[in-house]
Amino acid sequence: MSGSERIQPRTLKGFRDYLPEVMMPREHLMEIARQVYRRYGFSPIDTPALEYLEILAGKGGEETDKQLYRFQDHGGRWVGLRFDLTVPLARFVAQHAAQLPVPFKRYHIGPVWRGENTQRGRYREFVQCDFDIIGTRSAVADIETLQVVYDLMLALGFQQFTIRVNHRGILSGLLERLGLADRQTAVLRALDKLDKIGPGRVAEEITQAAGASAEQVQQILALGEMTGSNEGILNQAEALVVGSSAGQEAVARLREVLAGLEAAGVPGERVRLHLALARGLDYYTGMVFETLLDQLPEIGSVCSGGRYDNLAGLYTSQDWPGVGGSLGLDRLLAAMEALDRLQKVGTPAPVFIAYFDPQRLADYLRLAASLRRAGLGVELYPEPKKLSQQLKYADRRGFRLAVIAGSEEFAASVCQLKDLCRQSQQTVPLEPDAHSLIQTIRQILSESPPTNPT
Amino acid sequence: MSGSERIQPRTLKGFRDYLPEVMMPREHLMEIARQVYRRYGFSPIDTPALEYLEILAGKGGEETDKQLYRFQDHGGRWVGLRFDLTVPLARFVAQHAAQLPVPFKRYHIGPVWRGENTQRGRYREFVQCDFDIIGTRSAVADIETLQVVYDLMLALGFQQFTIRVNHRGILSGLLERLGLADRQTAVLRALDKLDKIGPGRVAEEITQAAGASAEQVQQILALGEMTGSNEGILNQAEALVVGSSAGQEAVARLREVLAGLEAAGVPGERVRLHLALARGLDYYTGMVFETLLDQLPEIGSVCSGGRYDNLAGLYTSQDWPGVGGSLGLDRLLAAMEALDRLQKVGTPAPVFIAYFDPQRLADYLRLAASLRRAGLGVELYPEPKKLSQQLKYADRRGFRLAVIAGSEEFAASVCQLKDLCRQSQQTVPLEPDAHSLIQTIRQILSESPPTNPT
Repeated sequence: MSGSERIQPRTLKGFRDYLPEVMMPREHLMEIARQVYRRYGFSPIDTPALEYLEILAGKGGEETDKQLYRFQDHGGRWVGLRFDLTVPLARFVAQHAAQLPVPFKRYHIGPVWRGENTQRGRYREFVQCDFDIIGTRSAVADIETLQVVYDLMLALGFQQFTIRVNHRGILSGLLERLGLADRQTAVLRALDKLDKIGPGRVAEEITQAAGASAEQVQQILALGEMTGSNEGILNQAEALVVGSSAGQEAVARLREVLAGLEAAGVPGERVRLHLALARGLDYYTGMVFETLLDQLPEIGSVCSGGRYDNLAGLYTSQDWPGVGGSLGLDRLLAAMEALDRLQKVGTPAPVFIAYFDPQRLADYLRLAASLRRAGLGVELYPEPKKLSQQLKYADRRGFRLAVIAGSEEFAASVCQLKDLCRQSQQTVPLEPDAHSLIQTIRQILSESPPTNPT
Repeated sequence: MSGSERIQPRTLKGFRDYLPEVMMPREHLMEIARQVYRRYGFSPIDTPALEYLEILAGKGGEETDKQLYRFQDHGGRWVGLRFDLTVPLARFVAQHAAQLPVPFKRYHIGPVWRGENTQRGRYREFVQCDFDIIGTRSAVADIETLQVVYDLMLALGFQQFTIRVNHRGILSGLLERLGLADRQTAVLRALDKLDKIGPGRVAEEITQAAGASAEQVQQILALGEMTGSNEGILNQAEALVVGSSAGQEAVARLREVLAGLEAAGVPGERVRLHLALARGLDYYTGMVFETLLDQLPEIGSVCSGGRYDNLAGLYTSQDWPGVGGSLGLDRLLAAMEALDRLQKVGTPAPVFIAYFDPQRLADYLRLAASLRRAGLGVELYPEPKKLSQQLKYADRRGFRLAVIAGSEEFAASVCQLKDLCRQSQQTVPLEPDAHSLIQTIRQILSESPPTNPT
C-alpha cells in the first residue's frame, strides 16, 4: 500500500486513548470502587450506550441537550448516546420495577458522552462511577451513602479529605421565612458559584435573579459564613429556619445523619456541614454532599451526590425516592498524579524471564508456567535476542525481577534472579518445580511496595 | 405529571439492560479474564467508542460496513461507533508506535456496536474481551496465546473443552500443490461453513466458487476428515503440502507450538489439530484457533483468534505482526447457564442485618461497620419494618446470613445469627467489637460455596 492511500491514525477531538500506564491505575481504581460498593450490598447493573432520544432529550437541561450525540439509526429511529448514568437509571427502574428489590442498591460504572466545548479542558467521553439506594427515604440510606464515600476515599489511599454536607431543606426553610420560597432555583444557581466567583458577585446575582433585598441577600450569604462545630452550625441553622417545617425537618435529618456517621466510626473531622453547598442539579431535594481533597481543593469535588424525591417520575407513576453519589474517576487520577501517589508501571506482571537459548525453549516455557501456577505474573520474552537488549526492555517496562538462565544454568538446575530495582543478583535452584525460586520471588515482592495493583 | 405526558421506559431493539443477577457473573468473568491476562504480562488499554468514520469504514467487510452506526457530530465530522476492538487496536498501534514497548501485549475489554439483524438472535451492543501480542512472529507468542486460552477456561471453571488449532499455511500449501493458490479466499469461506452446512454443500461451493475439480475438492475436504493423534495428523499434513515451502513452514510451526504447549503443562487432550478450521476472517495468516465446550459444541467457539501478518498496514508503513484471541463473554455466560454453573445471586454481600428497633440505630450502624471493616459484605435494611417482612426480603435476595438483634439482645450484648440457607440459628456474643460474630460468620461462609464471586 502506498503512503498516500494510508489513513492518518488519529482520535477525535475531545476523545483519548488510554495507554497501559494510565489504564492500569484506572482499572485499579474501578476495582477498588466495586469492592467498596459490594461490601455495602450494592449490585452492578449495565444499560445500553444508546437510548431512544426521547428518553434522553430534555432530561439534563438546555446545555446537556445541546451536547447530546444524536442521530437516526438503521431503522430510522432517533437515538442518542447517554450523557450520564442517572437518566438511564431512572428509565431502568421504571422499566424493571416489578423485578427489582426494594430498596434497590445499584452501582454502575461506564462511559458517557457529551459534545462538550473542549477548550475548557473537558473530554467528550468519560467514565462515571455511580452508586444509589433507591426506594427509601430512610436516614439510614443517607448515612450509608456518606459511609461509602468515606470508605471509598480511604480505600483509594486518601486520608486528608472533607465531605461537605448540606440539606436542601435548610435553604428552603430560610427562603420560606424570607418570603422567597418561589425563587429557590435562582438562589441555588447563584449559591452554587460561591467558591468560583465569591460572595460579592453571588450577592449581585441573587439580587438580580431572585429580586432579593440587601437584608435578604445578607441572610442567604450568611449560610456560607457559619463556622464552628457541626453542632454549632446546626444550632445556628435551626434559628434561621424557625417556623418552617421543611427547614426543621432538614435540621433534624442532618442531626440524625451526623449521629449515625459517628456511630459507624466515620471521624467527625472528615464531615463538615456547609450550609451554602448547593450542588447545581435541580433534582436534589434532601441531603447534598461533595468531597474535597484537603491538599487539592482546587480540583473540585471528587465524589458528589445527594437525595432526590422522585427519580423516575418522567417514566412511571411509581414513587422512587433515592440517594446516591458519583465518584470522579478522572479527577481522582489527576489528584493522585499531582500528589505523586500514582505508581506508573508499564507492566502488570512483576517477573520477566529472559529467553536467550532457543534450544531450551521448553525449559523457559515450563519455568514460566510453574511461576504462573503459583499466582505470579510472568512475562517470557518471545525472541532469543541479546540478553543486554532484553534486560534493557525489562528495565524500561518496569519489571521488578528478571530470571536469567542459559544452557549452563539449566544443566546445573539453577537460575540467576536479578532484582532490577536494587540491581542485586542471586543464584537460585530451579528444582523441584521452581519451588525455591517461587519462595524467593514472593519474599522479594513482599519486602517492598508491589510493582502493580493486581 | 399526567400519564399521557410520560415517556415509555424502553430499550432499543437489539439492546438490553443487565440486571444485577446477570451483571454479577458478567463482572466476575471479566475480572477473571483480567487476572489471567495480567499474569502473562498483558496490560489493559482503552480506546474511544467513537472514531473517525474513515478509520472504521471498509475495515470489516461489506456486511460490517452496512451495520456500522455512523453519523455527523456537532463539528460536522463523520464518525462511527467501533464495531470491534481490532480496528481500534490497529489505529492505536500506528498512532502510539513510538511509545509502545515491543512486544506489545495488551488486553482490551469494552463494548462494540453493530446494527445486526436481531432476528438472528444477535445483539447490537456487546462486550468484547480481546488479548493480543503485537510486534513479534515468534512461536513463543503463538504458544502463549493458547496457554492463555487454556488458563482462561480453567479459571472460568471449565474442564472439558477442546482448543482446535490449525495454520493457514497448510491450506495454502495444499492449494499451491493443487494449482489453486489464487483461490484461497473462496476456499476458506466455503470451508468455514463445514460444521454448519456439511461436506456435501461445502464441496458444491468450492466447486462453484473456486472452480475446483472433483479430485481437488476431495483433497481439500480430506483436511476435515483426518483423525488420530495430533502427531499423526501433522504427518498426514506434511504429505499433503509436500513441495510447498509455506506448507512445510506451517507444519513445522504447529509442531513447535504443540511441543511448547506440552512443556508448559497444557494437556494434549485439550488441544486438537483440526486442519479444516478456517476462521472466516481474511486477515489471519498463520495459526488459527477456536475453543469448543465438549458438552455444548453447538453454541460455537467461546474463544477464537489467530496470527496475522500486518495489523496496522492501513495506517502505517511499520510492520506490526501479531497473534491474539477474543473471549466470547456472552456465549460463556449462556454456556454456564445451560450447564447450571451460574450462581444466580441477587446480592454481592452475604450478610443481612435486620433493623427493627429505631432506638438502636446507632448500634446497628456500629455493628454493620465492624463487620465491613473485617472485609465482610453487609447490607443493613434501611427501614424498621416488621422482621418477617425483612427476612422475606433477605431470603428472596439470596443473603446467606441474617443478623437479628433488638433492644433485648443489645442489652445482653448478643445477637441471633440465622443461616438462611440451612435455616439454622444461633446466639452469638457481640462484644468486644463483634469479634466472635465475625469469626462465626467467616466460619459459616468458608464451609460452603461462597454466595458471591467477590
